[in-house]
Amino acid sequence: MKKFWSVLLLALAIMPPAVALETPPPPGPPPTVTYPTPVERTLTNGLRVIAIQRTGVPLISAQLIVKSGSEADPAALPGVASLTADVLTQGTATRSATEIAQATDALGAQLTADAGFDSSRVRVNATAPRFAAAFEIFADVVRRPVFAPEEVERARTQALSSLQLTYSNPSSLAPLVAERAVYGDAPYGHPADGTPKSVSTIARAQLQQFHQTYYRPDNAVLLIGGDIAPEAAFALAERVFGDWQKPATALPAPQASPVTAPTARVVVIDQPEAGRTAIVVSRIGIERADPSYFAGIVSNAVLSGYSGRLNSEVRIKRGLSYGASASLEARREPGPFTAGTLVDHTRAAEGAQVMLATIASLAAQPVGAGELKPRKAVVTGGFARSLETIDGLVAQVGRLALYGLPLEDINRYIPSTEAVSPEQIQQFATAHLKDNLSLVLVGNAKLFLPQLQKQFPALEVIPFAKLDLGQANLGRTAKVADK
Amino acid sequence: MKKFWSVLLLALAIMPPAVALETPPPPGPPPTVTYPTPVERTLTNGLRVIAIQRTGVPLISAQLIVKSGSEADPAALPGVASLTADVLTQGTATRSATEIAQATDALGAQLTADAGFDSSRVRVNATAPRFAAAFEIFADVVRRPVFAPEEVERARTQALSSLQLTYSNPSSLAPLVAERAVYGDAPYGHPADGTPKSVSTIARAQLQQFHQTYYRPDNAVLLIGGDIAPEAAFALAERVFGDWQKPATALPAPQASPVTAPTARVVVIDQPEAGRTAIVVSRIGIERADPSYFAGIVSNAVLSGYSGRLNSEVRIKRGLSYGASASLEARREPGPFTAGTLVDHTRAAEGAQVMLATIASLAAQPVGAGELKPRKAVVTGGFARSLETIDGLVAQVGRLALYGLPLEDINRYIPSTEAVSPEQIQQFATAHLKDNLSLVLVGNAKLFLPQLQKQFPALEVIPFAKLDLGQANLGRTAKVADK
Repeated sequence: MKKFWSVLLLALAIMPPAVALETPPPPGPPPTVTYPTPVERTLTNGLRVIAIQRTGVPLISAQLIVKSGSEADPAALPGVASLTADVLTQGTATRSATEIAQATDALGAQLTADAGFDSSRVRVNATAPRFAAAFEIFADVVRRPVFAPEEVERARTQALSSLQLTYSNPSSLAPLVAERAVYGDAPYGHPADGTPKSVSTIARAQLQQFHQTYYRPDNAVLLIGGDIAPEAAFALAERVFGDWQKPATALPAPQASPVTAPTARVVVIDQPEAGRTAIVVSRIGIERADPSYFAGIVSNAVLSGYSGRLNSEVRIKRGLSYGASASLEARREPGPFTAGTLVDHTRAAEGAQVMLATIASLAAQPVGAGELKPRKAVVTGGFARSLETIDGLVAQVGRLALYGLPLEDINRYIPSTEAVSPEQIQQFATAHLKDNLSLVLVGNAKLFLPQLQKQFPALEVIPFAKLDLGQANLGRTAKVADK
Repeated sequence: MKKFWSVLLLALAIMPPAVALETPPPPGPPPTVTYPTPVERTLTNGLRVIAIQRTGVPLISAQLIVKSGSEADPAALPGVASLTADVLTQGTATRSATEIAQATDALGAQLTADAGFDSSRVRVNATAPRFAAAFEIFADVVRRPVFAPEEVERARTQALSSLQLTYSNPSSLAPLVAERAVYGDAPYGHPADGTPKSVSTIARAQLQQFHQTYYRPDNAVLLIGGDIAPEAAFALAERVFGDWQKPATALPAPQASPVTAPTARVVVIDQPEAGRTAIVVSRIGIERADPSYFAGIVSNAVLSGYSGRLNSEVRIKRGLSYGASASLEARREPGPFTAGTLVDHTRAAEGAQVMLATIASLAAQPVGAGELKPRKAVVTGGFARSLETIDGLVAQVGRLALYGLPLEDINRYIPSTEAVSPEQIQQFATAHLKDNLSLVLVGNAKLFLPQLQKQFPALEVIPFAKLDLGQANLGRTAKVADK
């Protein structure tokens, strides 16, 4: 979500509103390319290993995907998966945090870990001759982290400081509020990075427990890609991970998110000191394995980007904002569709109205070919760029593996995008982007509330000081707007 | 310079100080790879065109390097080259800023421009089938920008806002102060992004003049790389840039920087509200074509990075800081060596002493093989990663072209790094990192000045409010330390 906003702001902050528009040039045919077919093998301990060879650059990248992430956080303690990943690389049974950093540095390697919804990920990247040595450190970190108390405290301090930044910025806060508003008590509802209260509370033992419970060979996928032959990758995986035992205990069943259409909510977080008002329209979307996935991402592209409908309506036609964009995050269970912008407080009600109407426009009639072709070009161009690095290729294949999709789909992404018809988009929009859109505004409420309430008499107002993202009611204490 | 600090902070902020250190594992052999040999042709208008074919990913990237950048700013108006690049993509004789953004967006392309010392750069990146259309827009922007008054104002507002951030952060301000302290009135002395005063003053006519004077085919190199055959790249270049006329006027002679060893200065910027004190040690280094370039970058690597001597001394052994690092920026004329860290105000004098002593240590005796091998691994690993994308490959070849080096050097970088001997490092350090190191501190001076003055009685103190990076004396009004 942070990425969504930063990309939006980077892309649009330098662009001026304007009125006269000409038809952009036709985009030409989509790129054609065949990416290397991933090959796979499963170790006797249950670890699925996927190798992707690409020569030309002497780099190798590995990623271990643990198929449990923030959705597996204890309900009362959001942030456990994220903190577990933060501390994972900071010391093992045989290496201190400093030793790990020095050893990877000496190899010219990069070693990182993070967590999000649906997965926790550890990555290592090194030049080919030094990869095997870096891979040993990577495996040590995956298998034998110690979660030293002082490292937990350091990670906690940094996480709290990062949350402070998130909360002080309406553009980063509003999507978190929207996710809670839309998902309620379901696992995707809580913030993956936790709340100030939960992060202050999480103990070392909970990180150890998360690691013991979920970081196990039968709940993971290991990807090795780049300048290495598949057989060599499998041999390395066997040597370094072959004796990784799975625990005797069974893997906990995943907590499912609700897949039913949500009830729309309108939530205002009153933050009088905010510079502008962030507006987010959100709704539960689709799961990654949904057959309408490509219709979904093309629908999202029609709304999003510089020439997308949201930016055209909000910025170019009305000069309401520096930009507006949208994202459709397909997950194991249906993930969120989120559209956002940032406007002057006094124009927030107008901005919300335009956002809602623009999203609804997709269901009203089929998208014209002249609009559709360039929007598909944005999708295929972004996809091609995302596969340019070994890290990017491994990450894309990893997402297919995480969501149980055929690995050959790496070569079907562009044709599947191109095949989406105007009718499919209209169907998708009718099913997923028409009704029950929730609305969240974070800003100086007194400057837009009277106008907004005319349109949404049942809206909820929560003072920023009372906001609690740890709870499905967002910390609201009164039943009616308590402004 | 911003990149230097952000990389430093990102890389080191999460790492803890510690005491016990073991020898890191041996890094293994360096990567071997042969990058595609660039081929070149010069158009009749004098434009040098370089093509670099790399298949496997359906992307093509072009970069036009204008061989004049911030060093060519009018002496009284730093920031002209940078603002010229900022506004370049914001409208041409036939396309408004919005039309340019919409057209590149519709092609799934990316179009950017920036300037720094020695060059101004325009880049475009698109999937192969859409590249030719994107390349037309790129050429339009290079050749026919209009610098519309409202776009100039917008760029000015954004540049001023960015400068405000730079000035409020000791870590971003201190390197700018150091460059001015070290270079004085020479072209590399002024900040490339200008000063609040100069950016407020620069007029549209000066941007037009910078463009007319320096953006011309006989002062530029065009690179086209990626999934395109060299002949096709040359044909495209000829078609789109072949009729680009060079002006009748001669190209102005470049202003040279001094290459004589500078006199060391110790400058304190008193910023009482700063959270911590930034310490920068700086000196004029070497030019890119200097035969000791590789000895220089390996010397810098011995000092820099997690296991580098600076971080080991400042952070790991003494816990003075979250990290310390260094950079050696080789340019057309000798560029700056810069080493920096951020410490508590009360330990600033100690921090400065440790930084200076650590840098001086390189000249005292040869670096041991056990230390040298991993430091070279950091350099070769970073180089391999930098060439992973088409953009990165084009940029590396572009730097060779800019500095008049053989393009085949792309394949000599790793062996040249590996060939550097301990004796060469000692020689480099004796010549370039021993004497005449200037020192800049930005922080709450009253907390460290008495201690620092014992060591450096002749230091200059400048209150933050009086700091003027537009002047070689940095805005200092009194001849002696005014405190």
